[in-house]
Order: sequence, then structure tokens, then C-alpha cells
Amino acid sequence: MKQTDISTIGEFGLIDRISKIIDEQAGSQPLRQNLLIGIADDAAVYKPAAGKVQLFTTDAFVEGIHFDLTYTSFKHLGWKAIVANVSDIAAMCGVPRYATIVLSLPKKISVEMIEEFYHGAVFACEKYSCLIVGGDTTSSLANSMISVAMTGEADESKIKFRKNASPGEYICVTGHLGASLAGLKILKREKERFALSTEQQLFKPNLEPYTPAIEKHLMPKPRLDISGIFAERVNVGAIIDVSDGLASEINHICNNSGTGAVIHEHNIPVDTITQKIASEFNEPPTDYALYGGEEYELLFTIKDDEYARLEKLTNDVTIIGRVTEKEKGIVLIRENGEQEPLKAGGWNHFKS
Amino acid sequence: MKQTDISTIGEFGLIDRISKIIDEQAGSQPLRQNLLIGIADDAAVYKPAAGKVQLFTTDAFVEGIHFDLTYTSFKHLGWKAIVANVSDIAAMCGVPRYATIVLSLPKKISVEMIEEFYHGAVFACEKYSCLIVGGDTTSSLANSMISVAMTGEADESKIKFRKNASPGEYICVTGHLGASLAGLKILKREKERFALSTEQQLFKPNLEPYTPAIEKHLMPKPRLDISGIFAERVNVGAIIDVSDGLASEINHICNNSGTGAVIHEHNIPVDTITQKIASEFNEPPTDYALYGGEEYELLFTIKDDEYARLEKLTNDVTIIGRVTEKEKGIVLIRENGEQEPLKAGGWNHFKS
Repeated sequence: MKQTDISTIGEFGLIDRISKIIDEQAGSQPLRQNLLIGIADDAAVYKPAAGKVQLFTTDAFVEGIHFDLTYTSFKHLGWKAIVANVSDIAAMCGVPRYATIVLSLPKKISVEMIEEFYHGAVFACEKYSCLIVGGDTTSSLANSMISVAMTGEADESKIKFRKNASPGEYICVTGHLGASLAGLKILKREKERFALSTEQQLFKPNLEPYTPAIEKHLMPKPRLDISGIFAERVNVGAIIDVSDGLASEINHICNNSGTGAVIHEHNIPVDTITQKIASEFNEPPTDYALYGGEEYELLFTIKDDEYARLEKLTNDVTIIGRVTEKEKGIVLIRENGEQEPLKAGGWNHFKS
Repeated sequence: MKQTDISTIGEFGLIDRISKIIDEQAGSQPLRQNLLIGIADDAAVYKPAAGKVQLFTTDAFVEGIHFDLTYTSFKHLGWKAIVANVSDIAAMCGVPRYATIVLSLPKKISVEMIEEFYHGAVFACEKYSCLIVGGDTTSSLANSMISVAMTGEADESKIKFRKNASPGEYICVTGHLGASLAGLKILKREKERFALSTEQQLFKPNLEPYTPAIEKHLMPKPRLDISGIFAERVNVGAIIDVSDGLASEINHICNNSGTGAVIHEHNIPVDTITQKIASEFNEPPTDYALYGGEEYELLFTIKDDEYARLEKLTNDVTIIGRVTEKEKGIVLIRENGEQEPLKAGGWNHFKS
């Protein structure tokens, strides 16, 4: 791939190249029609849908913390930066609308890499019906930083908060958990093997057998499919997206709702590839689900009769426990029947 | 000042400390009433004002590029990060509503510094009537990065675009220009003097005589006062805020509007302190106005009769030129009468 130094075209040249990609976004009719102006002004301007409330969220990705450019393409980064925000919108039972993107980039990043980033971001936006309408692109002395902000909309009556859980409700998750961390572990292992290899020219990373986990890490899918069911057809309690690991998210829901919870380890959905990877690393696969992150699945609570209705609409949800009274605490029942407190122990920035 | 390592309280401890400051934001009644949920969920949720359009913008500040922590306090950074976005909203003739803040911070940054940042951000939000409703706080391996996104609202009929300039209109600016760069030059000079000083313990930077310029750099004021007049009482053509230097912004307006422009150097408002500083550095003061940045004044075009009306409402605007036909190009008339093309030469990231 040709690699053009950003300095040869400058900030405004770069903005022109980015604009070309953004202008090609198809966007759905209502999104386009309601946008009065996008990136060509000081701020984007759009008409909000009548009678809806607005959602507003942001997520950042920092090189060396959230991603490693030796095994993450800019296209994947563009996808993931958008998807992380779409997932926040899904967790409120809303739909995404417009996004702004901040990129802070050191000299080593080429124009083509940035174009790849935008191709990935636009790909995700087209898939999940939102439009990129603005941003800020700056230089950086050291590592790359990506920050996306997104607006969405929802019917006020359909919004679900973290504080909406009630004792007696089931606790459920969409999809399966732990694969994102499992995929990351493989990527890191192969990078290390490469670094230690004596003949780096001949080195071939061993990734194929682990593809589903690696894909889950690099190209996660937000669960707008399931949140759409919640908005239209089934009534749920609290919702949160699993970005910091199951243990951490359950604690968020319980702390916000003033409840306890009991989770059954043997019910936590962990797929075969994650189990295989965990066993290669001699680690308990449930830990990947409890303390991994960046899954972008939904964790939610739901009454029994509503669950019965949900079951008929999707088979991609799993009951993992029950909401309890606050006094009972947040408890994990291990496969051997032993109980222990389930502490928030997911990905925590600034841990010592 | 006590300096607590972020690692001693962790990400969630830090979020608690930040939440306390954010929860103390007074916010105006409508802002509070229309906010269904702020930072305590996956996304903020608010009711948009009926009949208005939504504005959406973002701006980033990177350590080593936009700021230097040796002479910039975190409180000033918080102020400035909010104000840069408020200024974008003002440039559309809207009012700010809600903001999200992303902070990526290396280990050297203490909990108290982050609290100072939020105090500065909240201070600006209270002053300009917006509310912080969300964010993301992550670690960083090297430099600090700040990214703010902001929504605003406006009457659709009052929105002013960069493309709205017409030949024959006056070109005007609010306030005066160049002081932000002048203040920065003093801060940099004193830092250098400190570095070279043989008795650093006794070093006293010489800043007091330059206070107005330093304040303009560290604590700029967005021009919501003037954009409010535009929205309510006087009809203008195009507006843009001066964040990259006058030359660059004039080029933006002309390129977007398909016009030319003629600017008279001797009409560009440069205040006494900026002239004094420029003369200390043996540099032409107009260059500070043309190629400096981070002023957050408004550059706008306006018909003669509307200007006559504006003059009665404020004395803080100056006519600096006229919009012309595209064929005439973008021209600067120097004080000696000579003409030259006025090229965009403001702050350009990624310049070689």
C-alpha cells in the first residue's frame, strides 16, 4: 500500500480526503433529509424527529491502551469506534443518528491509514444507519487517539435505564461472552511469538483456528437487533452493554437499581472457541466472560412472562441469574455450588 | 496541593469524584428539566426543544500540540475545551445545550488535576448555560488528550452557514485579534527563560505586564453575546469563528460561498498589548491576527443597512473589508496600499 505522509498534504488536504469518503455515505432517506449541514461548517445541524428524545454518548480508543497497531487495522478501528457508541445507544433502546469523530495522530500515521479508518467507520455507519457529520483531526506527539461522539433517538416511553431492575426479574445476556478477550489473547501471543522468532521473515502467525474470537475482538457487532425487539415488542427492566466485563456491568445495574443479584456460573454463555483458547492459556473460561470486555452484548433484566414472549422472537439470549433484594448482595454461584461475592473486576483504567 | 495517584482510586473511584463535581452543576431550569438522565447511564437522554433544530460539534486538545502543562492549569484547560465548542455553536447562531468530555490521561496526572479540569469545565458551562452529561475517562501511555462534543439548538430560520456570504457585504470581526498568539508567545518565552536560568529556585516569570493577552490565550470568551444579537435582531450573511487565524477563516467563508474578498490590513483590530508584544518579538502585529488562532471571535459578513442597525447594539465589531465576486480573488490591501493574495496560513496541523 502506498503510504503518504500527512505533512505532504497538510491538515486541510487531509480534511478534503476525509470529506470525500464521508460525502459518499449513502445514509437512509430520513437521516439525509433531516441533516441541514454536515462537516462543511462550524457545527452539524439536523432536525430531530418530532416527539422523540435525543440520546448523546461518547467513547474513546487510545493506542497502547485499547488497541495495538501491530495487529489492528485502521479499518477495524473505524468500525469499532463507531460500534462502541452504537452499542451505548442500543443499551438505551434507541437508534443511532449522527456521529462526530476526533482523530489525534502522530507522524507515523499515513493518509491511507486514515482513509482506511474512515472506510471502516462509514461501513459501520451504513450498517447501523447513522451518518458521520463532523469531527476534528489534529496531530499528536506520541500515540494515536480516537474519540467518537454519537447522537441517537428513541421514544421517551421506550427508554431503559440502568436503574430499572427489580427483584425477581431474570438477568439475561445476548450472544455469548468472553470471546473478545480470548481473541485479544491470541493476537498478543502471536505478536510475542513473532518478536521472539529468529527468522521473522518466515514467521507466519497462527490465527486461522481462532478466527471467530479474533473477529469478535476486532469487529464486534452491537445488538441493535435485540434492542429493537425491546423497543417494539417485549418489556424489559434495566439494560447495559457489556463493555467492561460481565462482573462490572452487573454491579452497575445493581448499584443503580438498589438491588442484589445472583448469577449462576454454569449458565454464563461461553462459546467453544473461547473455551478452547482459555484452556490453551490454562485459565478458567468464565473469567473471560466475567472480567473481559469490549463484547458489546447487552445485559438486561426481564420479568418471567416477558421472557416467555422474548424467547419466541429470538434464541440469542440466555438467562444467567435473578435480580434479588439489595441485602442479599451480588453473588456468584460457582459450578460446584459454592457462593462468593461477585465484585466489579472488569477492565479498569488506572489500576495500580 | 495534594496530588493523589489515579491508580490509588482506580477508574471507578475517579468517575465517582468527577460525578460529584458534575452533579453540582446548577444548570438552568429548562436544561435540567429536559434532561432525563446524564452521566449515570450508557448514554445521556434529553428532550429537544420543540420546533428547534439540533447542532452537534466536537473539538480536541492534545498535550504538546494545543497545550503545555508547564504553563497551563487544568482549570484553564477545562474552561477552554468547553469554550471552543460553545464558540462553534455561536458561529451557527445557536445556543449550547449538552456536552460530553473524553479525557485520556497518563500516569503523571493526579486526581486533583482532573478535578480542577472539571471545575473549569463546569465554570464555563454555567457561564454559557450548558450541562455536562457524559464522557469517557481512559488512561494514556504518553500525552494527555481532551475531546469535548457538544449539542446546541437554534431556530432553523436563524441558522447561519459559512456559505451564506454575498458580494457587496461588509466583512467584520468581533473584539480584537492576535492576542491569543501574543499571550502564548509570552508564556513560551518565560518557560524558556526559566529553563535557561541558572538559579531556577529564584526564577520569577515576567507575566504581569502581559496579563490581557495571556488571559485571552488561557481563558478565551466565546461570542454568544454577539451571536445572540444575530439570532434575534440583526440579519447577517456568513459566520465562522476564528479558531485557526483570520486568513484561514476568510478563505473558508469565500470557498464555501463562492466569493472573493478584500481585506484592509489597517482595519484589522489589534489591541495595544498585542502590538506591544509583537514589537518585543520584532514581528508584524497583523501577522498575529492573520495567522494566530484560538481567538474564538466571530468573523461574519453583513449588508450595509443591517450593519447600521448592529452598530447601535454593540460597539465591539469592526469592519475589515468587503465580500467581492469570486474572480477578484481573496486580497489583502497592506497599509502601504500594496495588494497581495491572502492565503490560508493559520494553524495547520501536519504541516511539514
